[in-house]
Parts: sequence; C-alpha cells; structure tokens
Amino acid sequence: MPQPLGVVRDGDVVRITMRRPERRNALSEDHLRELLDALRATAGTDAAGVVIGGEGPVFSAGHDFADVAARDLDGVRDLLRLCTDVMQQVQAMPQVVIARVHALATAAGCQLVASCDLAVAGESAGFALPGGKGGWFCHTPAVPVARAIGRKRLMEMALTGDVVDAATALDWGLVNRLVPDADLDAAVDALMARATRGARASKARGKQVLYAQLDRPEEEAYDVALAAMADASQTPSAREGMAAFLEKRPAVWAD
Amino acid sequence: MPQPLGVVRDGDVVRITMRRPERRNALSEDHLRELLDALRATAGTDAAGVVIGGEGPVFSAGHDFADVAARDLDGVRDLLRLCTDVMQQVQAMPQVVIARVHALATAAGCQLVASCDLAVAGESAGFALPGGKGGWFCHTPAVPVARAIGRKRLMEMALTGDVVDAATALDWGLVNRLVPDADLDAAVDALMARATRGARASKARGKQVLYAQLDRPEEEAYDVALAAMADASQTPSAREGMAAFLEKRPAVWAD
Amino acid sequence: MPQPLGVVRDGDVVRITMRRPERRNALSEDHLRELLDALRATAGTDAAGVVIGGEGPVFSAGHDFADVAARDLDGVRDLLRLCTDVMQQVQAMPQVVIARVHALATAAGCQLVASCDLAVAGESAGFALPGGKGGWFCHTPAVPVARAIGRKRLMEMALTGDVVDAATALDWGLVNRLVPDADLDAAVDALMARATRGARASKARGKQVLYAQLDRPEEEAYDVALAAMADASQTPSAREGMAAFLEKRPAVWAD
Repeated sequence: MPQPLGVVRDGDVVRITMRRPERRNALSEDHLRELLDALRATAGTDAAGVVIGGEGPVFSAGHDFADVAARDLDGVRDLLRLCTDVMQQVQAMPQVVIARVHALATAAGCQLVASCDLAVAGESAGFALPGGKGGWFCHTPAVPVARAIGRKRLMEMALTGDVVDAATALDWGLVNRLVPDADLDAAVDALMARATRGARASKARGKQVLYAQLDRPEEEAYDVALAAMADASQTPSAREGMAAFLEKRPAVWAD
Repeated sequence: MPQPLGVVRDGDVVRITMRRPERRNALSEDHLRELLDALRATAGTDAAGVVIGGEGPVFSAGHDFADVAARDLDGVRDLLRLCTDVMQQVQAMPQVVIARVHALATAAGCQLVASCDLAVAGESAGFALPGGKGGWFCHTPAVPVARAIGRKRLMEMALTGDVVDAATALDWGLVNRLVPDADLDAAVDALMARATRGARASKARGKQVLYAQLDRPEEEAYDVALAAMADASQTPSAREGMAAFLEKRPAVWAD
Repeated sequence: MPQPLGVVRDGDVVRITMRRPERRNALSEDHLRELLDALRATAGTDAAGVVIGGEGPVFSAGHDFADVAARDLDGVRDLLRLCTDVMQQVQAMPQVVIARVHALATAAGCQLVASCDLAVAGESAGFALPGGKGGWFCHTPAVPVARAIGRKRLMEMALTGDVVDAATALDWGLVNRLVPDADLDAAVDALMARATRGARASKARGKQVLYAQLDRPEEEAYDVALAAMADASQTPSAREGMAAFLEKRPAVWAD
C-alpha cells in the first residue's frame, strides 16, 4: 500500500506527492506534519529541487474541517502554526520548490501554491480562497496570495471565494507556466532544469535573501541585499563563476 | 430636489451616489463630509455591501480647486485629513465596498476607486492622477493606486497625468471588471452578490485583517493573520460553516 | 575620440549614453563613477528629464567581472555601494529619468532599467538576472526588479537567469512602452514630453514622495503623503495651477 505522502528522490530532484485522494489531499495535522518532515529532511540533502504535487481529483482542498471542527482555540492555533511552518519551510529551504498543480488548489492548498518559489499549472487547475463565501475566512492563505497578485485581485479572490481558472492565474502572476495537463510533468521538469542551473550554495543563499528583502522599503531591502552580495563575492562559487567567465570556459561548481 | 449625496438602502446593499454633476462630483469639504457620514452610518447597519457611484459627466474629478485655493496650510491639511478619513473608512468598514465607475475618475476620484475593495468599470471609464502635469502633485491619491498597480505604471500615471482607459485599468489590476456602460449596474450587482455570500461577521473581520496584513514583510503578515484565523475558528460562523460542510447541508448564518 | 560616457543637454533633457560597446557597457567602477557624477551634476541643473541609454551590442551587461574578481570583501562592498548609489541617485534626483533600452539589459544593467522612473524598450530588448544560473547571485539587482514585477515572476527571473523578452517585460510592468527599435528615440521623447509637463518643483517633490511612500503599510504611506501634499498646496506652483484652472487660462510656472 502506498504511503499517503510520496517522497521520491529522482536525480537531483525530490518529488513530494500528496496521496490522500479520498480526503482531497486535505491538510490535516497528520498530513501537514508529514509534509513538514519531508521538507525538512530534504532541506538537509544535496538535492537541487523539490516538486510538490498531488494525486486524485484535486491538488489540495486545504484544511480538513473534520480535523478543525472539534478543536478549541489553542488547538486551532497549533494547527495553523504547523501549517504556517510548512509554508515558511518551503521558502526557507535551500532547494528550488515548484508546485505542480493539476485541478483545484483551494484555501491552504492555494496558499501552498503561492508559497512555492515557482508554480506550473495544468489547464485543469483552479485556485480559490473559499473561506470568504463560508464561515471561516481564509486569513492565512491570503498572506502569500496577496504577495503574488495585485490587491484588487486578492480582494476579489478573498471576498468572493470564486475559483480563478488557470489562464487567469497565469495572467495575474500566481503561476509561472500553463500547459495542457498531459504536459505537466514535462513542463515542471523543464522549468526545474532551468531553475537549478549554476552553483547550489549561491542559489540557496540567493533564495533566502530574496524572501528577506521583499515587502520592505527599498532602502532596507538594499541594506540586506548589498551585504549578502558582497559576502557572496568571496565564496568559491562566485570566484569560480567569474574565473570561468573571464577564461571563457565552463564553470565547475564545488558546492 | 434630490440631495447632493444619494444614500439608498436596496435590500442588503446601500447605494451611495454622488450627485453634483455641475461640480463634476468634486470632493469638496461638504461632499467629503457627507460621504464620510454616509459611510460611517452604513458601517453600523446590517447592510452587506456598499456601491459608490456618481451621476453626470464624470465619476469624480477629485478635489475642488475652488475649495482648496483659498486655504492656508492648516486648512488644506484638515481637508486632506478628511479626504483620507473617507478612504480609510471605506477599508475599515465591515461591508464589501464596490466602486461603480462610469466616465472619468481623476485625482482623489481615482483614489476613491483604488480605495474601494472592488471596482467595476464601464467602457467610458478613465483613470488619471493629473496633478503631475499641473502644479499640485497627486501625493495622497498615489497611495492606494500604488498598492493596486505596478510601480512603473504608477510612475507613468503620476508623472504624466495622462488618462488610463478602462481596458488598461483592467489589465493593470486597478479594476476587477470591464463591461459596456449599459451593463454597469448588472455587473456591479452580480459581483456584489458573489462578494457578499457567506457569514457577514466572518467576512467583515476578514476584510479588516486583509488590509492589516498587506504591505508588510510576510512574517509579520503571518503573525497578524494566524492570530485572527485562530480566533475566527471559535466563532459561531466558523462552527456553523464546518458543521454544515461535514453534514453536507447548507449553512445557516446567525451573524 | 568620444568620451566613454556621453552627457549631452538637448533642450530640457540630458541624454546620458553608455559608450563602452567593447566592454558591453559593463558597470565597472570607472563607469559607475562617471554615471554617478553625471547624474549628480544633472540633478543640480534646471533640466526636466534624463534619458539613460547605451551604444553597442547590449544596453548594459551589469558588473564587469574583470573589475570584481580580484577584489576582497571590502573592495566588493565599496563597488556595490557605489552601484547602489547610482540606482538611488536616479530615484532621488528631481528629474524624470527614462531608460532607453535596446538589446540586453542584464544583472546591474537590468537593475538600472528597473530603477529608472520609466522605461521604453525596443523590440530587441531583453532583461535578465543571470547570477542565478552562475556562481554570484543577483542579490541587489533583484531589489528594484522585485518592486516592478510580481513575486513569482521575480523568482523565475532570479532563479532561472533566463532572458525575458520585451513583450513579456511590458506585460509584467518592467517597462512602460514597447516599440520597434527604429522608433525608440521618438517613443522616449514622446513619453518624456508627457512626463515633464507641469511645474518642475511640484513634480520633483512628487517623485521624491512617491518613492518614500512605496513598500510601506498604507497608513504610514498616508502620513508621508498627506503632510507632503498639504505643504505642496502652499507653493507658488500649486497656487498658480489652481488659479489658472479656476480662471480658465493656461498656467505659467515660475519654478
């Protein structure tokens, strides 16, 4: 019997697959903990990239109401803290993380797509923050979605709860690629190959600094980025990259 | 004789209509005070939504220079404080607020559109920050416009003062819908119906938290949103929404 | 023999042209210092606008690895500080600054385009943050690019290092205009003419306040903008603009 969370190393890439189709890959406490464990374990490896996908009728339906309904305030807070830890782990880890989105990604499922560094959607993909049309508003899912799309579009998603189709998500910048579902794996792999070129250590630090400088006044962002870029110039990666360029030869990365 | 500001309750929605066509719905002190009073009064009602529109040749031409020219520094500051109070009241109030934009929305009129949660434009709509081609720069109107569109586009609007047509405004994310003028009311009502579904108290809190988390570093935004979402899980709305979902029945909202 | 940096006053506009085609207009220390000197000198003049362009096979290839490779940490930090000073000078100066982009703008060259108030691209233009596919990540170039385009698009540029073509750059809001290369000068001049109308002192202050209010929570942004707009109302420019409007005559700007 397959495990509910598939974690497979495939060359330089770790493929993490949500496999609770009967629960619509809902982010229950168990599922979130498995995801967090898998992401943390991968972070410490030499893998270059991570693909997060799902099996079944949807990508992920977000929180599992069966898992939430009985909790008191502390219990929900713990669950949301765990969920936020997953989202922040995606951004904190050194690997490039790509969401492979077939079918619906709703609530915390949509949040997971928005939290990945990059996202590839199949034509069947759809995105929604449905809390706005129910009784429990999508407060935390709106955090990374707000940072990917414009404000009026965020308000539309959050207030209406309607599904945004894949073409609209591409237009709004919520995903990077839109392909027929049959081409989803190939498109993910092609983008991953391009996004994982170059020196690993350099890119890992780069990703970390990108997230650190976003959403800050430009002057503060420059303080962070300038210090990081100066430090980076003294690393073996940078030295090798510049030497290879100046010597017109391919670079050989030690890290 | 109609009042200069129409305020009509129509089912769940309050329709606020600027009716100073001969003054191009300019935001004079009197007009702003009427708007603020109407918005504050509506905030305390059980209305679910607010539509802000205008009658006459333009949506609103922004500040009334006849009302500004004679003021000293304190006088202008008071006027701008009142204007900003209107914009912030739109975002602070529990109702979903939709701008219904026919014809030109300029300066503080454009600011009002940008400040509404959602906006529907007719084909005749146009948007401008004209201060940049005159003598009094659109400093405050640029605040919410900057938060709806990209930076280079903000710079173009603010520095040139040129009118952005409705199709471009849709492409840039300044408005949510673009329809023929004849369909404007129907499109506003359709969007309002979708944006006011669900539990009122949940959505009201949701809107408040959205504005609180925007424009902040993601980690700070999560602190705000996580606490709010945990609290919200214990409300009657959330409990009813989850129970209805799990019991596969329609929800009945008590608030 | 032409100087490596062309600085020509042409009516109200100063045209700054990078002319190191054999070095691909790389931003070496010498080049950056010349740019900074030219921008600072122009800031103190009554010029209304600045056009930054380049000659040769690319707009600018960014940092010159020959100039970086031998530096220690302090040396690189000084170079990046100088580079950041150039970018911040573009935004701090009173003139409207337009990037005239033919061919590739990469790394700090792309940063320069993103840092200009406005940008016009020819069809041959392309934009990239190539550090992500090498050994020295584009930390500082990503700062202004992040503030012009969406987050997922930033991640794609920064992690893949791939070239974004001019049409995509227009769609993403990295540039304001896209024209055939043969029309580049005409398009720059037309945009400059529109962006430099009105009172100079008013626009100069306006530009300064725009950059000060961006990327801040909306309430903080209003504090900055409201104070600036009230102050601005008492200037000769504002008084003349309002008087001319009310008297239905053209304005005559004293500053």
